[in-house]
Amino acid sequence: MAPEPFCFHLLGFAINPTSSFFSSSHSLKALCFHCSVSSTLLLLCFQVLPLPCFTKMANFLSIFTIRNLLVLSLALNVSLIMRAFFDGEKQGFFSVEQRGPSVDADKETHATQRTLLSVSSSSDNEDMERVINLNHGDPTMYEKYWMMMGERTTVVIPGWHSMSYFSDVKNLCWFLEPEFAKQVFRLHKSVGNAVTEGRHIVVGTGSSQLVLAALFALSPKDGSEPMSVVSTAPYYSSYPVMANYLKSGLYNWAGDAQSFDKEGPYIELITSPNNPDGFIRQPTVNRTGGKLVHDLAYYWPQYTPISSTADHDLTLFTITKLTGHAGSRIGWALVKDPEVAKEMVKFIELNTIGVCRVSQLRAAKILEVLTNTTEKLGRSDSGESFFEISYHLMAERWRLLRAAVNNGSMFSLPEFPPGFCHFLQQETQPQPAFAWLKCEDDAVEDCESFLRGHKILARGGRQFGVSPKYVRVSMLSRDINFSLFLKRLSKIQS
Amino acid sequence: MAPEPFCFHLLGFAINPTSSFFSSSHSLKALCFHCSVSSTLLLLCFQVLPLPCFTKMANFLSIFTIRNLLVLSLALNVSLIMRAFFDGEKQGFFSVEQRGPSVDADKETHATQRTLLSVSSSSDNEDMERVINLNHGDPTMYEKYWMMMGERTTVVIPGWHSMSYFSDVKNLCWFLEPEFAKQVFRLHKSVGNAVTEGRHIVVGTGSSQLVLAALFALSPKDGSEPMSVVSTAPYYSSYPVMANYLKSGLYNWAGDAQSFDKEGPYIELITSPNNPDGFIRQPTVNRTGGKLVHDLAYYWPQYTPISSTADHDLTLFTITKLTGHAGSRIGWALVKDPEVAKEMVKFIELNTIGVCRVSQLRAAKILEVLTNTTEKLGRSDSGESFFEISYHLMAERWRLLRAAVNNGSMFSLPEFPPGFCHFLQQETQPQPAFAWLKCEDDAVEDCESFLRGHKILARGGRQFGVSPKYVRVSMLSRDINFSLFLKRLSKIQS
Repeated sequence: MAPEPFCFHLLGFAINPTSSFFSSSHSLKALCFHCSVSSTLLLLCFQVLPLPCFTKMANFLSIFTIRNLLVLSLALNVSLIMRAFFDGEKQGFFSVEQRGPSVDADKETHATQRTLLSVSSSSDNEDMERVINLNHGDPTMYEKYWMMMGERTTVVIPGWHSMSYFSDVKNLCWFLEPEFAKQVFRLHKSVGNAVTEGRHIVVGTGSSQLVLAALFALSPKDGSEPMSVVSTAPYYSSYPVMANYLKSGLYNWAGDAQSFDKEGPYIELITSPNNPDGFIRQPTVNRTGGKLVHDLAYYWPQYTPISSTADHDLTLFTITKLTGHAGSRIGWALVKDPEVAKEMVKFIELNTIGVCRVSQLRAAKILEVLTNTTEKLGRSDSGESFFEISYHLMAERWRLLRAAVNNGSMFSLPEFPPGFCHFLQQETQPQPAFAWLKCEDDAVEDCESFLRGHKILARGGRQFGVSPKYVRVSMLSRDINFSLFLKRLSKIQS
Repeated sequence: MAPEPFCFHLLGFAINPTSSFFSSSHSLKALCFHCSVSSTLLLLCFQVLPLPCFTKMANFLSIFTIRNLLVLSLALNVSLIMRAFFDGEKQGFFSVEQRGPSVDADKETHATQRTLLSVSSSSDNEDMERVINLNHGDPTMYEKYWMMMGERTTVVIPGWHSMSYFSDVKNLCWFLEPEFAKQVFRLHKSVGNAVTEGRHIVVGTGSSQLVLAALFALSPKDGSEPMSVVSTAPYYSSYPVMANYLKSGLYNWAGDAQSFDKEGPYIELITSPNNPDGFIRQPTVNRTGGKLVHDLAYYWPQYTPISSTADHDLTLFTITKLTGHAGSRIGWALVKDPEVAKEMVKFIELNTIGVCRVSQLRAAKILEVLTNTTEKLGRSDSGESFFEISYHLMAERWRLLRAAVNNGSMFSLPEFPPGFCHFLQQETQPQPAFAWLKCEDDAVEDCESFLRGHKILARGGRQFGVSPKYVRVSMLSRDINFSLFLKRLSKIQS
């Protein structure tokens, strides 16, 4: 894939004032915001990276054509003019918008913009005082894309809508909205990342609830002892506590799958690409009586090559890592065995009596628009493709992060083999949602504490079952946090 | 309170064609629907109740003034004309509305209307063949009210809104939307049913999740044995299975609180008014070391007199039984001890990583509009008051049910003492969300099976820890189901 579509996505607004994005004041705001963020990020790269890094930057920039660079230059000018406009007018500009039914949304947009403005105008000292929270995988990076998409994903919910408990009494999963199910199937078919034929969808309040539902469904109810739950280290830090916090007699945490040698049945949780380290995973234990739960939250084209269509008994997905809508709390399971699906449904009945219907309908609308953009791939309007844009944003962040890390010897990052992505129809690099950073400095035993000393919050290796020399850092924060993180890393190594 | 406001609410549209409800085609539909339902219900009363019952009906009707009866008569005429309009025009009338962003809502509205139309035109035989499901407390009765309120409770959610996991990082309950918290406090203050000063709100995915969160929070994590969980029979049928389904080592079900004699700490669940039987409840065990969870889901003016302001350590509420929005999965806890609140938050973090933000914002809008209508009580527009209208709807249903039950000797219902409701400022009768029906016939041992034989689905006494001669029947179904239920009861007793 040529870098052009992305380049034009990032910068194209500047040269096309008749674009449909000018059709409302909302779109104008999104445009200003967009240009401002893009240019701020690029400007920051030049500011924060020390001299030796410019060689790598030059290599990075070599992928752009002359035309791209011209457009980049124009966009920087436009964004500087716009920022001047924001600085002068922001009070009036914001207040005029405080009306209508989506006032809360406007407030949120303005908050984001204000944060950006305040940081972009802050001094180096202020930047260094600010705590950067990259501990959670809060996927706020994606806000920008959905702002750009304007009102296409807006949902309007009348007060008398979706009042009953029941979404579809004829479905095994009676609380599943048919429209959500339809859009999930359509998306998987479009991306080709999971087999949906002969699968039941079980919707959950996020995929966390579905992990618990799966543990319940796969454990015998009359077992003489709890079923062992294992995962290969480094494993998702919540798995041990999720399996243990209720001291269930049905299942309990049995640690790293690599050292699991207990006889009898077990459940293995396989996250692929893996959280925290981003590697593709296969089952580790491979013994009779093992039940497998495949958590494919990150098996989407922006994070890893889609090399094959996953075909497992029980597969979990979540909208959180796919589109960034973490606050919606929507996940889904594709389940082959109807008896397992029924048990998962029973768990969710007892746990929360179903899943918020309005949230499912909103998720359905978002997935519908997302899939519409993927189906336009290769056509002239491919500049809107969610996966292309997200892929390039992640690629850009990973390039910048590797450049910052390679600028010294204190840290290291995993190296991933590239693979052919059947969806993007090209060889792509894995670029995980988390950076699995290692402190290479012998003087640093606990990388989490070390970074905390530099006001960077990240999650230490011990929570993932490995050495505290590792930390997991979110790659999905808003641009400004990511930029500050790069700046701080460079400062630490300087 | 005189019956006039209710009477005019039910029938007033017929004599006030300049009402604001005519301001849009939506409102016209709501009006037609409303008149049609009201008149259908009243007509059915006359159709289904056998002769001896007319004496009781006469007593019931004596509460209406001559003016009310005139209006009733006019409303019946108008509704018959409108039904003829519907029958002739419904195809065109519905199809013209299938546009715009809330098409799904229109579909749902039309489905409700079509059900009503098909049933109101069905034969007696067809009615007797239909299964009436009153097993769940699905509160669809309230749809009509929210349709009447039109667009005031409509929410518009842009695609980039509420994406982060976090609603309010400064709050102990970081996933609580500040606007939802504000509306909850405002409503309790307006109704006077619970003390909110010095309380933390913990929002949950329905109050089911909050029951589980409370069990987790109140159980010692290092206890030598599970904490006993008790409730006085008849208790909510889900309590035993909720306490036991994960075979937790923290807590387990210890049965009827009346026969609980085990030493040591315990948790008592107190539902008041009680589900299933509607009685006001106090703690039963009253021993040192007891932790109390007050489930006040039904402590609202439409169900029971608000005789005092509840002032407990841990109190649960849900929007489901308050406004009818079951599909939203929103409940809240008022918690005195911040340490308990923190543990409940921890449970919800591990269980579902928070609560859907959009659902909270929608609930906030609904509560805001609801409270606005209560604050107008006593003014000329009190005809919109949610609690007044719901109170009268429940009163009407209970009067009709008691009339149908008293028409024979096969069934009986609990009798409740009236009380002074500080909110409605008058003496009111308890009129629970469930009817706790007893089969008095010696030949019937299992009332649930007996009713199932007559195609009525209800929940048998055994699930509530008492005799199978009892059943719990939902009083919150749509008008047409409730009417068919009355008709069927009368037929059984004839």
